[in-house]
Amino acid sequence: MALILTFLGKGGTGRTTVAIAAAKKLATQGARVLLAGVDPGPSLGLLLGTSTSPDPQELTQNLQVVQFQSAVLLERSWEEIKKLEAQYLRTPLIKNVYGQELGVLPGMDSALALNAIREYDASGKYDAIVYDGSGDQTTLRMLGMPEILSWYIRRFRKVVEDSDLWKTVSPFIQPISSAVLNVSWTGDNFAQQPTNEVNNLLERGKAAIADPSRTAAYLVTTGDPTAVATAQYLWGSAQQIGLTVGGVLLNQEPVTEGISANFSPLAVSSLPICPPSDWQPLIEALPDLRQAASAPKPIEIDISARQVRLFLPGFDKKQVKLTQSGPEVTIDAGDQRRNISLPPQLSGQSVKGAKFQNSYLTISF
Amino acid sequence: MALILTFLGKGGTGRTTVAIAAAKKLATQGARVLLAGVDPGPSLGLLLGTSTSPDPQELTQNLQVVQFQSAVLLERSWEEIKKLEAQYLRTPLIKNVYGQELGVLPGMDSALALNAIREYDASGKYDAIVYDGSGDQTTLRMLGMPEILSWYIRRFRKVVEDSDLWKTVSPFIQPISSAVLNVSWTGDNFAQQPTNEVNNLLERGKAAIADPSRTAAYLVTTGDPTAVATAQYLWGSAQQIGLTVGGVLLNQEPVTEGISANFSPLAVSSLPICPPSDWQPLIEALPDLRQAASAPKPIEIDISARQVRLFLPGFDKKQVKLTQSGPEVTIDAGDQRRNISLPPQLSGQSVKGAKFQNSYLTISF
Repeated sequence: MALILTFLGKGGTGRTTVAIAAAKKLATQGARVLLAGVDPGPSLGLLLGTSTSPDPQELTQNLQVVQFQSAVLLERSWEEIKKLEAQYLRTPLIKNVYGQELGVLPGMDSALALNAIREYDASGKYDAIVYDGSGDQTTLRMLGMPEILSWYIRRFRKVVEDSDLWKTVSPFIQPISSAVLNVSWTGDNFAQQPTNEVNNLLERGKAAIADPSRTAAYLVTTGDPTAVATAQYLWGSAQQIGLTVGGVLLNQEPVTEGISANFSPLAVSSLPICPPSDWQPLIEALPDLRQAASAPKPIEIDISARQVRLFLPGFDKKQVKLTQSGPEVTIDAGDQRRNISLPPQLSGQSVKGAKFQNSYLTISF
Repeated sequence: MALILTFLGKGGTGRTTVAIAAAKKLATQGARVLLAGVDPGPSLGLLLGTSTSPDPQELTQNLQVVQFQSAVLLERSWEEIKKLEAQYLRTPLIKNVYGQELGVLPGMDSALALNAIREYDASGKYDAIVYDGSGDQTTLRMLGMPEILSWYIRRFRKVVEDSDLWKTVSPFIQPISSAVLNVSWTGDNFAQQPTNEVNNLLERGKAAIADPSRTAAYLVTTGDPTAVATAQYLWGSAQQIGLTVGGVLLNQEPVTEGISANFSPLAVSSLPICPPSDWQPLIEALPDLRQAASAPKPIEIDISARQVRLFLPGFDKKQVKLTQSGPEVTIDAGDQRRNISLPPQLSGQSVKGAKFQNSYLTISF
């Protein structure tokens, strides 16, 4: 299991440069590191001074670099899907559709990149994966995907199972499935079996992203007020997807009291201006990036006190909304919507009270 | 019908500032302008010096600003979907799922933003919509969506219709549809009727994005080599989704011969450094942004010469790939994959030759 690190901040604050320095630092400390760039544009290659490719290549000892290319990842995933089809369907349907034809739709970049990270993580070849994503909402959508997708599956499975529609359609499921599928599925497990495997994947993804010793983000900013405000906004937004933010990297400026106050209680580290291709001063100035577990946790559940505490920095009271229209408690903040999956003792209960103080939303049941 | 303008370039080059200035310029020229921001972070509001909201508000005469919020757009779309369900399904399935519960998955931001632009365009209230998106691959994925999604529908409808699977399942379609649906659909039109409406929407979207007098992008860059290389890369990538790039805006630097050569034959305009809140010098320095139709077209089809010409600047020969594995011709460049939809005279024919010269890929049939 690798440590997955990513950097959030406004464009132009030096996120890619910091990601490269972080990867180099971890590699010199002896970790086997994969630096993964997501945008196939020329930035990463130019900063590294080398060409990059969709397969990992060695950069220096312990350090490999890969630049994800969605069209390539899509081709490979398509071959996997065709294998599954051949396994389960009596007469293959999509075998004549080629991976080389498939265009990339919105969202596919994120889904494919997350899947690629999962596979590199599972390969056991790396101790750390430094993900140089777009560093904004798109990266948060990607890392929030396991939790949100598993909510959709949970919610809609129940809706279908409880529905009159299911009672109407289910008599047809048995004859269709035996005519179409290689394996025998009854109406009962038809809706469950194929989704269980996906659910296991999603549960493992959720657990990895919620664990700050497995996945952590760091904020990158300059002293520019727009960059600082954007970093604060991304800090709060990251908590909303359960991602722990471990600290702040202030690029090319000394730390002031004002900036520290904006990010309290996180540590703010100043990074020096470095001449191109001299990475050493930057590498030395980086803090230990494995310490995110000591930063405030996005969520804490106290079953005996019947309380849930959410850390939502960077938002004020009127930017945080709590609703309970569906079966779960929903929190809106920073265009991230989170359904809180509660332990059995609190699940399905009505909210008795909620208060927002010192960046913490405390919900009582 | 509004003119839709967007700005592409590396983060931190001033895209949002340029978008605001462009919106102000068009408004002072008498156009009714909507400035649409996609990232709900604080940047746009800070630069405008006002708070923004998910509904348009007047900024100055002729100029309104809206900041898309995916959670809000998703709630509204969900209500529309529930109306459709109530209209077509005998027993509504999702009526007890509330828009307020729905989380945002990767890709939804783009799909919802594109749909919102479509609705504002169709409202007839605006002569120009200035879209301040993420300005990178994500914006291209969004604008490429109508073409790519209609390819998927076209390709997979045919795969299903020709398949043994369809022959196996179709006997069940009639009894299921009459048990489930309010309207009577036969097996023949079951697969077609619901998709036709979507297809019409997609065709209109494709036509709008392919027409440079309706939709155009401008590149924003500084003199920094990484920013220039990124702008070139986005230029070529934009052609691949059929989006015309009208010109280059060089921020805070004088135009040099070297930079002009990088973007030939596009015009490069230098933009001055402006003190905060003095927009006038920037507005005056902007070129006429309605002239994209005079820039090179992404695709030209010459039926009598049996040739297709694609303009792919910023790529060299080995970065452009042509394949013909499926029924259409597929071009790969810059992680954008395009299936060329050919007129009947050339459709389904084998490629006889292809050459890449002076940024043009010429394909002969």
